[in-house]
Amino acid sequence: MKLEKLIGSRFKEKPADCVIDSHALMVRGGYMKNVGNGIFSEYPALKRITAKIERIIRTEMDAIDGQEVLFPVVLPADLWDESGRYESVGNELLRFKDRNQSRMVLAMTHEEAAVHLVREYAQSYAKYPFMIYQIQRKFRDEARPRAGMIRVREFTMKDAYSFHTSQEDLEKYYDRCYVAYNRIFQKAGIPEVVTVASDSGMMGGNISHEYMLLTPVGEDSIVLCDACGYRANMEAAENKMANDNPGAVASLQCVETPECKTIEEVCHYLKSDEKLSCKAVVYQKNADDKFVVAFVRGDYEVNETKLRNIVGEEIHTAEITEDDPLVAGYIGPYDISTEVEYYLDVSLRGIENLVAGANRDGYHYTGLNLERDLEKAEYVDISKIQEGSVCPCCGKKAITIKRGIEVGNIFQLGTKYTETMGMQYTDENGQLHYPIMGCYGIGVGRLAASICEAYHDEYGPIWPISVAPWEVHICCLRADDEETKAVADRLYGELLDAGVEVIYDDRESVRPGAMFSDADLLGVPVRVVVSPRNLKEHAVEIATRDKSVKEMVALEEVFGYIQSLRQRLHDEIAEKVEPYGLSQDGMNHCE
Amino acid sequence: MKLEKLIGSRFKEKPADCVIDSHALMVRGGYMKNVGNGIFSEYPALKRITAKIERIIRTEMDAIDGQEVLFPVVLPADLWDESGRYESVGNELLRFKDRNQSRMVLAMTHEEAAVHLVREYAQSYAKYPFMIYQIQRKFRDEARPRAGMIRVREFTMKDAYSFHTSQEDLEKYYDRCYVAYNRIFQKAGIPEVVTVASDSGMMGGNISHEYMLLTPVGEDSIVLCDACGYRANMEAAENKMANDNPGAVASLQCVETPECKTIEEVCHYLKSDEKLSCKAVVYQKNADDKFVVAFVRGDYEVNETKLRNIVGEEIHTAEITEDDPLVAGYIGPYDISTEVEYYLDVSLRGIENLVAGANRDGYHYTGLNLERDLEKAEYVDISKIQEGSVCPCCGKKAITIKRGIEVGNIFQLGTKYTETMGMQYTDENGQLHYPIMGCYGIGVGRLAASICEAYHDEYGPIWPISVAPWEVHICCLRADDEETKAVADRLYGELLDAGVEVIYDDRESVRPGAMFSDADLLGVPVRVVVSPRNLKEHAVEIATRDKSVKEMVALEEVFGYIQSLRQRLHDEIAEKVEPYGLSQDGMNHCE
Repeated sequence: MKLEKLIGSRFKEKPADCVIDSHALMVRGGYMKNVGNGIFSEYPALKRITAKIERIIRTEMDAIDGQEVLFPVVLPADLWDESGRYESVGNELLRFKDRNQSRMVLAMTHEEAAVHLVREYAQSYAKYPFMIYQIQRKFRDEARPRAGMIRVREFTMKDAYSFHTSQEDLEKYYDRCYVAYNRIFQKAGIPEVVTVASDSGMMGGNISHEYMLLTPVGEDSIVLCDACGYRANMEAAENKMANDNPGAVASLQCVETPECKTIEEVCHYLKSDEKLSCKAVVYQKNADDKFVVAFVRGDYEVNETKLRNIVGEEIHTAEITEDDPLVAGYIGPYDISTEVEYYLDVSLRGIENLVAGANRDGYHYTGLNLERDLEKAEYVDISKIQEGSVCPCCGKKAITIKRGIEVGNIFQLGTKYTETMGMQYTDENGQLHYPIMGCYGIGVGRLAASICEAYHDEYGPIWPISVAPWEVHICCLRADDEETKAVADRLYGELLDAGVEVIYDDRESVRPGAMFSDADLLGVPVRVVVSPRNLKEHAVEIATRDKSVKEMVALEEVFGYIQSLRQRLHDEIAEKVEPYGLSQDGMNHCE
Repeated sequence: MKLEKLIGSRFKEKPADCVIDSHALMVRGGYMKNVGNGIFSEYPALKRITAKIERIIRTEMDAIDGQEVLFPVVLPADLWDESGRYESVGNELLRFKDRNQSRMVLAMTHEEAAVHLVREYAQSYAKYPFMIYQIQRKFRDEARPRAGMIRVREFTMKDAYSFHTSQEDLEKYYDRCYVAYNRIFQKAGIPEVVTVASDSGMMGGNISHEYMLLTPVGEDSIVLCDACGYRANMEAAENKMANDNPGAVASLQCVETPECKTIEEVCHYLKSDEKLSCKAVVYQKNADDKFVVAFVRGDYEVNETKLRNIVGEEIHTAEITEDDPLVAGYIGPYDISTEVEYYLDVSLRGIENLVAGANRDGYHYTGLNLERDLEKAEYVDISKIQEGSVCPCCGKKAITIKRGIEVGNIFQLGTKYTETMGMQYTDENGQLHYPIMGCYGIGVGRLAASICEAYHDEYGPIWPISVAPWEVHICCLRADDEETKAVADRLYGELLDAGVEVIYDDRESVRPGAMFSDADLLGVPVRVVVSPRNLKEHAVEIATRDKSVKEMVALEEVFGYIQSLRQRLHDEIAEKVEPYGLSQDGMNHCE
């Protein structure tokens, strides 16, 4: 198409509200427009990209026997009552009433709808296994939408649900899906996406993986082992502590620590090491406001997801008043009120001489030895693993922490939804069972933004040809020059006839600099510059957006050159796509 | 694919809640499942159909220079405040609050979002004209969803918005879109869809057309002239009355009519003709409950849309109490309270001797002559045109009324949205103007259901090949017979390799009758039956779903026969697709 006609404005200034590059470039390039908090419209350039991503996803889902369906965006609350999630999910689930005062929700995920669709159909074992998927809008009422298309409230998502009669069968399918997901990211031009083991959170179930694009602007922390290749997200990475410095055994003493309410203040006052101190972080249960105290080593942080999983219910940061059985700033595990539920983190294990709050205003204990002084010292993993920690997989001290954007996730759900929603099948012997489910998600818009985040320079996105809005961008400098225009027009026509996706900039009144800026912002992989100066040499300039190619090509060779360059760019992506049925070595199964 | 694996159950029993055939067949055939009131999930068979419909629509929208975009389903109420529709639209607009108590709506149409997307982009006349479209979910909180996919609350819709700098330019584009729409319905296999002039309703603007599939189960009434071809929907069809029987002039008399509150009762009591009586239908304005009385000839009905357009604001059926200035059952235009706003319908024009309420309990007037007895008798068109009425176009008494399903609509919107939302452009002379808009909609699911309604028999849908979920359906009777299975398998493989869309029923335990029932419910145009009996004759049976073809074809010719039959079915549809640029004769411009 003609660039002149393309809907969407491109501009130079970085929008003030854009904190990451992909967001700024996709606003500046006329890809998206903010409609409300975390809600965007897509201009044609982005719609072309997301359509290509959706096509890639469909191909891969169909290849693993997925059948495309469509669930509604608006669901009756009854369905979510059945699974229990109408109550259990927080404010991200948008609840409202329709004109008849019926309770409804905006679907943020579709497990309930999937079970609803197939529970009558799949009553016999012979129907299994099967997978259904959809590409549909979802709404998740995020408290803090941010980073453009990375974390939004309304988004297009491919979500898939598989149903099985055994855990083995689920795992077999999960492995196929694992490869299909790799292929999707490889085809979309970001083969560097890695999988990490993850926590299943509110989805239920056990084994799950996230697909992560490593980037400093990512909002997730990823735990990597340089020695064995172990990868997990922060929630799923077990903190296997080795306390090298247990401290010298001493007797338990209660000492005055006036006005020392933080670990820093206490350690400074007592001239002790943070690594030999016990930090208290206090929460309350959502249900009854009962206190839950997490004790971790002074230099560690609590991981709330791990804690929540161990507590087994929703918790929130506590507010302590004077009437409560806790003395803020002086909380310790020794002599703590029996009304309080508390957990000792593994980071405290093996320390023989701890500083900890004395549960009295202005006092701490020194010389605390948990094994010796507590009736029972049990340790749980509720802390965040740190850079340089012991790898939970190979045991080497080789953990590094990186940031990433989650571009996909796959879950082994188990029977959480089929049990709560009463979906059963009859086996060969007439026995009833609950099918076992898996679910598999990819956010389409987030993937587009992630590709941009992975491949861009200061001037704009550098789209991989498989998802680029167009394959070839023709700039006709001096479209008012008859010969130049004729050459550019002819080339445009020839390429269109050959089925090449071309965007053609033949605007007369636009300076070359502005034309090139626009081309940079559109990020089309192959750029062709037709100009009077080039034509003097009987040639045009052909370059790639990533600057790896920049050549003057003789006029009679231009069409062939573009076609083979274009093919080469497609091939380069295709070469990185792993075949089906590859062994699952990459699957992060640590032996 | 194998039928055995197809998600969705097929069954014989007509579901109790299905009042029209397409709904019953699409439930019985495993196309859709009810999730809530007017909310459905789509099974793979339907998703394949809607995907094909969407592809047809995209092709035609692109062909008239449309650019695909995507607007959100959830919109901030602010946008609808700008257009005034947050207030003016009724309960169909679902309003709710998000977690931050911000007012939001579920978009039921996207004029506001369209203007929002382009109002900065299109500030210069040079950007015009342009059209943007999307295929997206919408939610309309219908009071009474019904007829399956015909009238739902959540639906997928293609909506397009064009922007112009002159009315002429809009009309030129409107004509192109008019043809594109015809082509869409022709390609989708229902070339019999007709256009009717329509009322623009809440969309604003003047000229608009609806695309109607004529069918007795349609919920819209369509006015057709057998003489000149005039077509309009009930709201848009002007009632040009010719009162053949004015009645004999008489003097005005107030007569007692005890307990005669209806036209029937009065006419029976007074032995007068309904066609010489004046019926009162009472409404109240939504804003202030002020009474509005519509007077029509006794045998006519009020058309509320026409009345609403003339009143200029929302109205509802009145509730009259004893304190009100109206006497229920005895309301007439003569001596009516001055507090009441009333309108005389054209059906009363020319009658010289009317019976009408006397605005006194138990009394009517006879001999009422509106021209003579009222200070001022003005007539407006607020009644429904009737079978046999005068055609507003050619003037002949040749009106017939049919039922139809609205499968699409196109509107000349004017500047309603650009003015209210402050979208302007600068013309060649630096003057500011409001762009003129058109909008163009097609409901994807409703179109699928309409095709089914148009083409089905008692056994199932008869899908046109262009939208059929598959092109060929192979039934392998006796899949336990080795030779039969081998022939069917080979054919299935050959057809798949040739890119034919095949559904293959090779279930071993299913009787032929059940196989054929399933095939009927899936409505695939070409059916191939491979069976031991046929193979004895070295042949298979090939039939079309519409029964126009049923042949035994020798084995070696089967592949070629299927391919040419399939091509012929595609060609038959293609032949009915009108070319671009056809003159707009069919466009219902009555001279």
